[in-house]
Amino acid sequence: MEEVKGVVKHVLLARFKEDIKTFRGTDVSVENMHQGFTHVFESTFESVEGIAEYVAHPAHVEFANEFLPTLEKVIVIDYKPTVLRA
Amino acid sequence: MEEVKGVVKHVLLARFKEDIKTFRGTDVSVENMHQGFTHVFESTFESVEGIAEYVAHPAHVEFANEFLPTLEKVIVIDYKPTVLRA
Repeated sequence: MEEVKGVVKHVLLARFKEDIKTFRGTDVSVENMHQGFTHVFESTFESVEGIAEYVAHPAHVEFANEFLPTLEKVIVIDYKPTVLRA
Repeated sequence: MEEVKGVVKHVLLARFKEDIKTFRGTDVSVENMHQGFTHVFESTFESVEGIAEYVAHPAHVEFANEFLPTLEKVIVIDYKPTVLRA
Protein backbone atom coordinates (compact mmCIF):
# COMPACT_ATOMS: atom_id res chain seq x y z
CA MET A 1 0.00 0.00 0.00
CA GLU A 2 1.54 3.23 -1.18
CA GLU A 3 0.74 6.60 0.34
CA VAL A 4 0.16 9.29 -2.27
CA LYS A 5 3.12 11.56 -1.57
CA GLY A 6 2.38 15.05 -0.43
CA VAL A 7 -1.39 14.82 -0.70
CA VAL A 8 -4.01 15.21 2.00
CA LYS A 9 -7.73 14.96 1.28
CA HIS A 10 -10.17 17.21 3.14
CA VAL A 11 -13.72 15.83 3.25
CA LEU A 12 -16.80 17.62 4.55
CA LEU A 13 -20.16 15.87 4.93
CA ALA A 14 -23.12 18.14 5.45
CA ARG A 15 -26.83 18.14 6.03
CA PHE A 16 -28.48 21.52 5.52
CA LYS A 17 -31.26 22.83 7.71
CA GLU A 18 -34.64 22.48 6.06
CA ASP A 19 -35.07 26.12 5.08
CA ILE A 20 -31.77 26.21 3.19
CA LYS A 21 -31.87 25.30 -0.48
CA THR A 22 -29.36 22.67 -1.48
CA PHE A 23 -27.37 23.66 -4.49
CA ARG A 24 -25.48 20.60 -5.78
CA GLY A 25 -23.68 17.30 -5.14
CA THR A 26 -26.54 15.48 -3.50
CA ASP A 27 -26.30 12.00 -2.05
CA VAL A 28 -27.08 9.22 -4.53
CA SER A 29 -26.24 6.26 -2.31
CA VAL A 30 -28.09 2.98 -2.51
CA GLU A 31 -27.16 1.46 0.87
CA ASN A 32 -29.15 3.76 3.17
CA MET A 33 -26.13 4.30 5.41
CA HIS A 34 -25.73 8.04 4.80
CA GLN A 35 -27.29 8.93 8.17
CA GLY A 36 -29.08 11.90 6.73
CA PHE A 37 -26.01 13.57 5.20
CA THR A 38 -26.89 15.02 1.83
CA HIS A 39 -23.74 16.74 0.53
CA VAL A 40 -20.04 16.05 0.19
CA PHE A 41 -17.30 18.60 -0.48
CA GLU A 42 -13.84 17.31 -1.12
CA SER A 43 -10.63 19.29 -1.59
CA THR A 44 -7.04 18.13 -2.05
CA PHE A 45 -4.16 19.97 -0.43
CA GLU A 46 -0.41 19.57 -0.59
CA SER A 47 -0.01 19.14 3.16
CA VAL A 48 -1.76 19.17 6.52
CA GLU A 49 -0.17 22.58 7.05
CA GLY A 50 -1.84 23.71 3.82
CA ILE A 51 -5.24 22.76 5.24
CA ALA A 52 -4.48 24.56 8.51
CA GLU A 53 -3.54 27.67 6.52
CA TYR A 54 -6.72 27.41 4.42
CA VAL A 55 -8.92 26.95 7.49
CA ALA A 56 -7.37 29.95 9.26
CA HIS A 57 -7.49 32.24 6.21
CA PRO A 58 -9.74 35.29 6.82
CA ALA A 59 -11.75 34.56 3.65
CA HIS A 60 -12.42 30.99 4.85
CA VAL A 61 -13.31 32.16 8.35
CA GLU A 62 -15.79 34.64 6.88
CA PHE A 63 -17.28 31.95 4.64
CA ALA A 64 -17.43 29.39 7.46
CA ASN A 65 -19.22 31.86 9.71
CA GLU A 66 -21.98 32.10 7.10
CA PHE A 67 -21.92 28.48 5.95
CA LEU A 68 -21.80 26.52 9.21
CA PRO A 69 -24.99 28.06 10.69
CA THR A 70 -26.90 26.79 7.62
CA LEU A 71 -26.02 23.18 8.47
CA GLU A 72 -28.03 20.82 10.62
CA LYS A 73 -25.01 18.57 11.01
CA VAL A 74 -21.50 18.45 9.68
CA ILE A 75 -18.41 16.26 9.81
CA VAL A 76 -15.00 17.30 8.54
CA ILE A 77 -12.23 14.74 8.26
CA ASP A 78 -8.82 14.95 6.59
CA TYR A 79 -6.69 11.99 5.57
CA LYS A 80 -3.56 11.09 3.64
CA PRO A 81 -4.89 8.73 0.99
CA THR A 82 -3.17 5.37 0.59
CA VAL A 83 -3.58 3.69 -2.79
CA LEU A 84 -5.19 0.27 -2.52
CA ARG A 85 -5.80 -0.21 -6.21
CA ALA A 86 -4.93 2.31 -8.92
CA MET B 1 -19.81 23.93 -12.50
CA GLU B 2 -19.17 20.85 -14.50
CA GLU B 3 -20.17 17.36 -13.39
CA VAL B 4 -17.46 14.78 -13.96
CA LYS B 5 -19.12 12.59 -16.57
CA GLY B 6 -19.82 9.03 -15.64
CA VAL B 7 -18.13 9.13 -12.24
CA VAL B 8 -19.62 8.50 -8.82
CA LYS B 9 -17.58 8.65 -5.64
CA HIS B 10 -18.31 6.21 -2.81
CA VAL B 11 -17.14 7.47 0.58
CA LEU B 12 -17.15 5.50 3.85
CA LEU B 13 -16.31 7.09 7.18
CA ALA B 14 -15.61 4.67 9.99
CA ARG B 15 -14.75 4.51 13.65
CA PHE B 16 -13.53 1.12 14.80
CA LYS B 17 -14.47 -0.42 18.12
CA GLU B 18 -11.71 -0.11 20.67
CA ASP B 19 -10.54 -3.71 20.51
CA ILE B 20 -10.04 -3.62 16.74
CA LYS B 21 -6.63 -2.52 15.50
CA THR B 22 -6.71 0.25 12.95
CA PHE B 23 -4.64 -0.53 9.92
CA ARG B 24 -4.24 2.68 7.88
CA GLY B 25 -5.62 6.04 6.66
CA THR B 26 -6.14 7.68 10.03
CA ASP B 27 -7.70 11.09 10.53
CA VAL B 28 -5.21 13.97 10.48
CA SER B 29 -7.70 16.84 10.67
CA VAL B 30 -6.94 20.07 12.49
CA GLU B 31 -10.46 21.42 12.98
CA ASN B 32 -11.78 18.93 15.54
CA MET B 33 -14.96 18.40 13.52
CA HIS B 34 -14.41 14.72 12.73
CA GLN B 35 -16.92 13.58 15.38
CA GLY B 36 -14.80 10.62 16.34
CA PHE B 37 -14.49 9.15 12.84
CA THR B 38 -10.97 7.87 12.34
CA HIS B 39 -10.86 6.34 8.84
CA VAL B 40 -11.96 7.17 5.31
CA PHE B 41 -12.27 4.75 2.39
CA GLU B 42 -13.02 6.22 -1.00
CA SER B 43 -13.70 4.38 -4.24
CA THR B 44 -14.63 5.70 -7.67
CA PHE B 45 -17.14 3.89 -9.87
CA GLU B 46 -18.41 4.42 -13.37
CA SER B 47 -22.04 4.67 -12.33
CA VAL B 48 -24.51 4.39 -9.48
CA GLU B 49 -25.46 1.02 -10.95
CA GLY B 50 -21.81 0.00 -10.64
CA ILE B 51 -21.91 0.76 -6.93
CA ALA B 52 -25.14 -1.18 -6.51
CA GLU B 53 -23.55 -4.14 -8.29
CA TYR B 54 -20.43 -3.89 -6.10
CA VAL B 55 -22.47 -3.68 -2.90
CA ALA B 56 -24.58 -6.70 -3.84
CA HIS B 57 -21.62 -8.84 -4.98
CA PRO B 58 -21.24 -12.00 -2.84
CA ALA B 59 -17.58 -11.15 -2.11
CA HIS B 60 -18.58 -7.70 -0.84
CA VAL B 61 -21.45 -9.09 1.20
CA GLU B 62 -19.08 -11.59 2.82
CA PHE B 63 -16.54 -8.83 3.53
CA ALA B 64 -19.19 -6.44 4.85
CA ASN B 65 -20.51 -9.10 7.21
CA GLU B 66 -17.06 -9.30 8.80
CA PHE B 67 -16.14 -5.61 8.52
CA LEU B 68 -19.28 -3.83 9.72
CA PRO B 69 -19.42 -5.55 13.14
CA THR B 70 -15.91 -4.21 13.85
CA LEU B 71 -17.16 -0.61 13.55
CA GLU B 72 -18.49 1.55 16.34
CA LYS B 73 -20.05 3.89 13.79
CA VAL B 74 -20.13 4.20 10.04
CA ILE B 75 -21.47 6.49 7.34
CA VAL B 76 -21.53 5.65 3.65
CA ILE B 77 -22.39 8.33 1.11
CA ASP B 78 -22.09 8.32 -2.68
CA TYR B 79 -22.04 11.41 -4.88
CA LYS B 80 -21.44 12.52 -8.44
CA PRO B 81 -18.58 14.98 -8.08
CA THR B 82 -18.98 18.41 -9.62
CA VAL B 83 -15.74 20.24 -10.40
CA LEU B 84 -15.53 23.59 -8.65
CA ARG B 85 -11.89 24.23 -9.41
CA ALA B 86 -9.60 21.91 -11.33
